[in-house]
Amino acid sequence: MEIKGFSFSAVEAGIRYQDRLDLGLIYSDHPVVAAGALTTSLVKAAPVLIDIDRLEDGCAQAILVNSGCANACTGEAGMEVAFVTGELLAKELEIKPENILLSSTGVIGEPLNVRAFRDNISPLVQGLAPDNFEKVAQAIMTTDTVQKVCYHSVEIDGVDVHFMGMAKGAGMIMPNMATMLSFVITDAQIGSAQLKEALTPAVKKTFNRITVDGDTSTNDMVLVMANGGAQNSSIKSGTQAAEDFQGALQYVLMDLALKIVADGEGASKMITIRVCGAREDAEAEQVARTVANSSLVKTAFFGEDANWGRILAAMGRAGVPFDPYQVDISFGDVTLVRDGLAVGRSAEDTATAILKEKEITVCIDLKSGKCCEEVYTCDFSIDYVKINADYRS
Amino acid sequence: MEIKGFSFSAVEAGIRYQDRLDLGLIYSDHPVVAAGALTTSLVKAAPVLIDIDRLEDGCAQAILVNSGCANACTGEAGMEVAFVTGELLAKELEIKPENILLSSTGVIGEPLNVRAFRDNISPLVQGLAPDNFEKVAQAIMTTDTVQKVCYHSVEIDGVDVHFMGMAKGAGMIMPNMATMLSFVITDAQIGSAQLKEALTPAVKKTFNRITVDGDTSTNDMVLVMANGGAQNSSIKSGTQAAEDFQGALQYVLMDLALKIVADGEGASKMITIRVCGAREDAEAEQVARTVANSSLVKTAFFGEDANWGRILAAMGRAGVPFDPYQVDISFGDVTLVRDGLAVGRSAEDTATAILKEKEITVCIDLKSGKCCEEVYTCDFSIDYVKINADYRS
Repeated sequence: MEIKGFSFSAVEAGIRYQDRLDLGLIYSDHPVVAAGALTTSLVKAAPVLIDIDRLEDGCAQAILVNSGCANACTGEAGMEVAFVTGELLAKELEIKPENILLSSTGVIGEPLNVRAFRDNISPLVQGLAPDNFEKVAQAIMTTDTVQKVCYHSVEIDGVDVHFMGMAKGAGMIMPNMATMLSFVITDAQIGSAQLKEALTPAVKKTFNRITVDGDTSTNDMVLVMANGGAQNSSIKSGTQAAEDFQGALQYVLMDLALKIVADGEGASKMITIRVCGAREDAEAEQVARTVANSSLVKTAFFGEDANWGRILAAMGRAGVPFDPYQVDISFGDVTLVRDGLAVGRSAEDTATAILKEKEITVCIDLKSGKCCEEVYTCDFSIDYVKINADYRS
Repeated sequence: MEIKGFSFSAVEAGIRYQDRLDLGLIYSDHPVVAAGALTTSLVKAAPVLIDIDRLEDGCAQAILVNSGCANACTGEAGMEVAFVTGELLAKELEIKPENILLSSTGVIGEPLNVRAFRDNISPLVQGLAPDNFEKVAQAIMTTDTVQKVCYHSVEIDGVDVHFMGMAKGAGMIMPNMATMLSFVITDAQIGSAQLKEALTPAVKKTFNRITVDGDTSTNDMVLVMANGGAQNSSIKSGTQAAEDFQGALQYVLMDLALKIVADGEGASKMITIRVCGAREDAEAEQVARTVANSSLVKTAFFGEDANWGRILAAMGRAGVPFDPYQVDISFGDVTLVRDGLAVGRSAEDTATAILKEKEITVCIDLKSGKCCEEVYTCDFSIDYVKINADYRS
């Protein structure tokens, strides 16, 4: 897929490692509507701080992104360097620096290699082409094992609207407002307020529902740019068109979010924790999140052990009131626990077979209300520890 | 050490595995003062529910404990079986069942093997001897690799008072009121209200400050029995004697708590996270606990990587306000981060050498107040995953 007006480029800039794409550019041939959802961590990387400011006018023309260095915990010097990288690009593209969004991912606390930018901005801009989207998706990978992109189109008000999304992230993933990095472009015609209105709930239901290891990054961000090329009548709040747009955006973000979970560091399985029968959505989410973050639950999944006791134990510390002897738990369509008690050995044997699959849904019914939420996670493997004991070396 | 009036026994009852001590008994030759701190998990094992009730009168004569089965999530049947085990023991000892405290540890959700109790209560009672304390400490081990005991004596009001403590626990350890299991006996003369008064703050500063994996067990408990044999004048609240007693009890609990962390599942290092300069104790604790529970921080310690960026990132999601650019972080006596910024490569190299040690203290100074708290944890290793992927098989 291509979207007219957008072009992309990526180069091997040697920011931290040689011989890999590590500097990417998303460019629109004119300033377009933009919105973002950025990390809620108190410790925010320099590019996050800059983007919060630059997104205020709801307008952007380019996203400059690097892997290899997060430019986080780098103080005034880190801010200064980030500004310099933007200015280098602005000069090369002959656009305003304020319309460039910056994004970094990689090791925290090390200075950004500004020389790598200086030497490579020119070839980066020269490489811009409408079919280079996936090269950028590759350039933003760190411990990811696969590139993560999503192409989607939907009819809004009788007009075809297109979306192209990418994401990266495999560890330090329990986004709170955004994942590590995700960029989506669309040709929808939409105002910046309406774009923000669509983005916030879409992020809440997608990136904010995944967890690999319970850690929230300093650099998390989702950025969306909409250039209006589809020429639909501009989307107004509260209309069917707004609902369709939000649905399509959420589809793209969910696809990317699940790709992140499936590629979680060391993950061998994707696990959906669905909590139903809660009194409130927030309680359902809290229970699901506590289970999804339990190291004991996640190692049991890795061991393909239908250890529902660990699930109930995790639920018990979630801080949400429920009656343990009303709880049902099933793996796929096999009920393991009914009214808080084991159904029996043969159900466990069937569940153990289900655990050999790559995608598993755990349903927890609290039977005390009508609210339901899902959280998406992966198992906790030996490779997770290997990857993270080793990441910087 | 022995304490007159107390005797101990343990047998191989075959509750889950053969050829290992798995049933233990702590017995006092008369009913004595007792207090407990039990799990705050909403999901409470049968013995926990029974003990909460039986501790109300502040009096007990025996503790019956088994490993191999937690008797948690077992409903009415589990309660019934627990009562039966107590009655079997009461009959054999010719004491009141209400004076027997019950304790179980092991797999959740499986029925307790009552026959193993029936067949072994008699040899268990026959084996009672004043020097069998460590046999009970062995009988309560599950994934523990070493028995954990602590002997301590202290002068209170001019009289020598003795303490004998044991604990077990290696995984599912983020106690909230208690660790998995810990039993302490003492010959102090003290009322039940005063004993409870001493126990609560002592648990708060010790077992409630350790975390192996962020999971709180359904079976956590600390039980203390005091038989008055030291013949000190009974300890009154608010006196020097009360302070001395509380200090001694806290010493014993801290010793046992740190032994649990050092023997954390798969642990290769013990790590103290000390947060200073906080505005409130609770904020210091919250920051320390968030860092101590971060999988990324813990895997970095396993990898002996002085990755302070992960520490700052974890702090950023702790929900506690602080200025990242005021934070100092040191490993041992090496300052790695000053005012939120890296001190430099040579400090990191020195810190990396410190990480090769078995016990490491991380000091985090928020520089925004005068409050300090410590949380104790261990690293997150490949073996943790192996142990927990494999525990039930």
